[in-house]
Amino acid sequence: MHRFAVLAKQTVASPSCKGPGGCRNERRDMALQCVASLVEGKPQQQRSPRLTCSGRKELVRWNSAAKAPAVKINEKTSREKILTLESMNPQVKAVEYAVRGPIVLKAGEIEKELRKGIKKPFTEVIKANIGDAHAMGQQPITFLRQVVALCTYPDLLDSPSFPEDSKKRARRILQGCGGNSLGSYSASQGVNCIREDVAAYIERRDEGIPADPDNIYLTTGASDGIATILKILVSGEGQSRTGVMIPIPQYPLYSAAISELDAIQMNYYLDEENCWALDVNELRRSLNEAKAYCNPKVLCIINPGNPTGQVQSRKCIEDVIHFAWEEQLFLLADEVYQDNVYAEECQFHSFKKVLYEMGPEYYSNVELASFHSTSKGYMGECGYRGGYMEVINLHPEIKGQLVKLLSVRLCPPVSGQVAMDIVVNPPVPGEESYAQFIKEKESVLNNLAQKAKLTEDMFNKVPGIHCNPLQGAMYAFPRIFIPSKAIEAAKAHKMAPDLFYCMKLLEETGICVVPGSGFGQREGSYHFRMTILPPVEKLKIVLEKVKDFHIQFLQEYA
Amino acid sequence: MHRFAVLAKQTVASPSCKGPGGCRNERRDMALQCVASLVEGKPQQQRSPRLTCSGRKELVRWNSAAKAPAVKINEKTSREKILTLESMNPQVKAVEYAVRGPIVLKAGEIEKELRKGIKKPFTEVIKANIGDAHAMGQQPITFLRQVVALCTYPDLLDSPSFPEDSKKRARRILQGCGGNSLGSYSASQGVNCIREDVAAYIERRDEGIPADPDNIYLTTGASDGIATILKILVSGEGQSRTGVMIPIPQYPLYSAAISELDAIQMNYYLDEENCWALDVNELRRSLNEAKAYCNPKVLCIINPGNPTGQVQSRKCIEDVIHFAWEEQLFLLADEVYQDNVYAEECQFHSFKKVLYEMGPEYYSNVELASFHSTSKGYMGECGYRGGYMEVINLHPEIKGQLVKLLSVRLCPPVSGQVAMDIVVNPPVPGEESYAQFIKEKESVLNNLAQKAKLTEDMFNKVPGIHCNPLQGAMYAFPRIFIPSKAIEAAKAHKMAPDLFYCMKLLEETGICVVPGSGFGQREGSYHFRMTILPPVEKLKIVLEKVKDFHIQFLQEYA
Repeated sequence: MHRFAVLAKQTVASPSCKGPGGCRNERRDMALQCVASLVEGKPQQQRSPRLTCSGRKELVRWNSAAKAPAVKINEKTSREKILTLESMNPQVKAVEYAVRGPIVLKAGEIEKELRKGIKKPFTEVIKANIGDAHAMGQQPITFLRQVVALCTYPDLLDSPSFPEDSKKRARRILQGCGGNSLGSYSASQGVNCIREDVAAYIERRDEGIPADPDNIYLTTGASDGIATILKILVSGEGQSRTGVMIPIPQYPLYSAAISELDAIQMNYYLDEENCWALDVNELRRSLNEAKAYCNPKVLCIINPGNPTGQVQSRKCIEDVIHFAWEEQLFLLADEVYQDNVYAEECQFHSFKKVLYEMGPEYYSNVELASFHSTSKGYMGECGYRGGYMEVINLHPEIKGQLVKLLSVRLCPPVSGQVAMDIVVNPPVPGEESYAQFIKEKESVLNNLAQKAKLTEDMFNKVPGIHCNPLQGAMYAFPRIFIPSKAIEAAKAHKMAPDLFYCMKLLEETGICVVPGSGFGQREGSYHFRMTILPPVEKLKIVLEKVKDFHIQFLQEYA
Repeated sequence: MHRFAVLAKQTVASPSCKGPGGCRNERRDMALQCVASLVEGKPQQQRSPRLTCSGRKELVRWNSAAKAPAVKINEKTSREKILTLESMNPQVKAVEYAVRGPIVLKAGEIEKELRKGIKKPFTEVIKANIGDAHAMGQQPITFLRQVVALCTYPDLLDSPSFPEDSKKRARRILQGCGGNSLGSYSASQGVNCIREDVAAYIERRDEGIPADPDNIYLTTGASDGIATILKILVSGEGQSRTGVMIPIPQYPLYSAAISELDAIQMNYYLDEENCWALDVNELRRSLNEAKAYCNPKVLCIINPGNPTGQVQSRKCIEDVIHFAWEEQLFLLADEVYQDNVYAEECQFHSFKKVLYEMGPEYYSNVELASFHSTSKGYMGECGYRGGYMEVINLHPEIKGQLVKLLSVRLCPPVSGQVAMDIVVNPPVPGEESYAQFIKEKESVLNNLAQKAKLTEDMFNKVPGIHCNPLQGAMYAFPRIFIPSKAIEAAKAHKMAPDLFYCMKLLEETGICVVPGSGFGQREGSYHFRMTILPPVEKLKIVLEKVKDFHIQFLQEYA
């Protein structure tokens, strides 16, 4: 047994350094690294050696038994890295993902400081940056967890403390698993009986329009499905690169996947003046402009909207489908918030259902992938990474290609598949667990509806903030007025004005929201995205704090 | 409520068809489709409409209430698909993955036929194609499942039927989860305390060589980690495209990821005559040849080997590390079989440990990512999609890029992270569950060791089969002699000779193995990969059947 430990004393590279990484960047990243390490909870000096591109460095060998004195090795041999910002995949470098971006790193840093006892004008960081319901205190749906636990540890099937309907589902799912174990790989497309349950759910949801289990693919969250379909769709080089139409504002998974795949992002703007409605004329404008420099092939829709919370009307969906049909676009319908509709006058209509109702010319032709997830709705089971996609009118050859591509990753996590099963196959009237299930589900959804209204109302009382109705999903995306002096101050800090605003909000109130620039917005307009997931009483405090901050901000930069 | 259903009667396209999909391909894929649908358990006529590129088609509208007569719509309007083999991502098209390839589709087809009562010379299909232990009857490790169940359904923390050590672990993990729930997103890099446990495990394994939780990334199985690191590494166009060195035979995740990323696959051949040893001279040959047409940047090692089962000597690992250091290659060490070493004379040495023992010139410079998984070892928890990677000497800027890339997918499945925790943090002496844990673990590993020896011995008794010792992992990769007449017959069927062999083996015995061509092999040599996972008695029968088949095959094509 021997023991090593390494202590790196890094000297800051001199300004004249001409290392290939660019030492300015390196210093900045060392700082970010420092933030990251603070977030992750280990003091810096315990770390492995990190080398600067040309900074001198001393390595100290520790001998824990203290038999030998520490030996200093003057390490002239430290070399350039193989993998650097210059040598890495430029498409990955181009990826941005604001939902877990710099503001979240900063939030982690502040949390660390609070834990150390450093005084702040607040006592906790409230992470309203991400739709993570359980992290905000929402309780899991009991029935879902019971079934997952039974499948995990089948000895519990003999326990009297689990209801019979949960056991029935667990037994059925286990029968669909190799060796009756969640530890077996499932089919790459997902466990057969779970795909059947998904298809049955879609048929119920869509009032009898048929769904075929063979068109259902279970996924590792909706993000995985969306990225996979985009990966198959993208092709071409130069002016024939695939164009992908996405809403602005968008959920940044889309822009990230498009960057990664080196496709062309084609923005269409949602109409903020009109409750973030989607206007087909705007789709047409975007398409016509893009035809000059790419091959438009895909149209992505998020309904209910993220970050914008609008719920599309049936008429609007019909228009979009007609447009996709006319312009030969592959439709991606991100419907992960299908259970999250709050506005009285709104209703969720699935693209699949509207497509079928438009007749055979449409439902026999339009290629449509729609996505759902365990992470949102009333269950909020993000950590399970469960989801499904239904793909309609896929060419049989492509179906084979898709299954092949999925098989390389073997299968989606099976416990996430089980969670998905309970989302689509919950207790029904007459079953033992029905009453409790409905009570829990409605409690979550009523609570969200209440908070959606509260948030809209409170934001709209603040001068310089305008918030559209939160018809669905779980976010507010208010427009904020940022005075020109604040815009100048942001420029001086090399920040987008809304990032500057959000950073100040975080530092002064502990509230972590994501700047609108991370989702896209019309030039000159500024927003942030805030989840409505904190418990009502806490949400009220959050909204009060944002109000006070905003008023003070306007005064400070008047 | 209305109800639709669609019946597609497809006419086979005529040979003169000039559809853009190429109707020959289409027919082939329709056949494959047919296989696929048989596998997935729904009769063909219940499916959604599928359009051929030019085949005529009739759509029949079903009215389930039988109020209206079925209306035939002569669908002249059926259009070309947007997403076709021609328009799809060519890099995805180039991907191959034999482990779940055509032979597995065929196996599913045969299973279906057996269930229908169609007579075969066997009563069941034995899937020895994939390392899926639980599907072959291996029982889960009780303690692992107890902890996952407790985390899933924390009410069980009050149950007297769970041991205290499992509860202790569950409580600690839940404290590391947002809202104490597996349903929250974890940090993109993984739950902090689990990464700490992984680092502590690596330090124990590597006899005190330090491991930093900040260098640990939890993943969705090892495949996810490998694909992610490769994705960051790949860059360049034309002659400066990234070259990735992989062993031949290889696990086809590597070739698939390389295809997908449009990188250059650089083969180095393992030495079959020398128990599949890795020879640095062969690495050098491969590298020197490839320098002419790409930018070699990555060296992938699988140890213990998949499909080849060799365990690298410490000396060999040192040579490889020296080579990587000398040639400036980023090292990927796939060590998912680190617990699966059976040969008396062999021992697992981690690349990380050997790297540190080689001194600071190496451990301060060589960029190394190593991978582990919940899927193999003694636990075989494939369905959980748990894994980790440790990345050493990553440039701090790249660390930020990696975390950003991971954050787009939010986090690995949290229940898989919990499973990983128990793999690295199992019961220790003095704990309540220790005795049972050790008993279960040793039972699995002793059993595998016995089967490794049995398999080697039995194969080597068959004329025309040569099998290297199965030093580790969970596969045999015997070399098979295929007579020239059989090679001709395979050509006539447009199959690789070993695919032809494996198809016949499957059809005649029900045993599903993967042809060597799916992993790569020296030209003119033929192999197959077979798992040693079936229970001993069944494995004996399998090996007897392979023997009889092989002898008969040699006679048939003598």
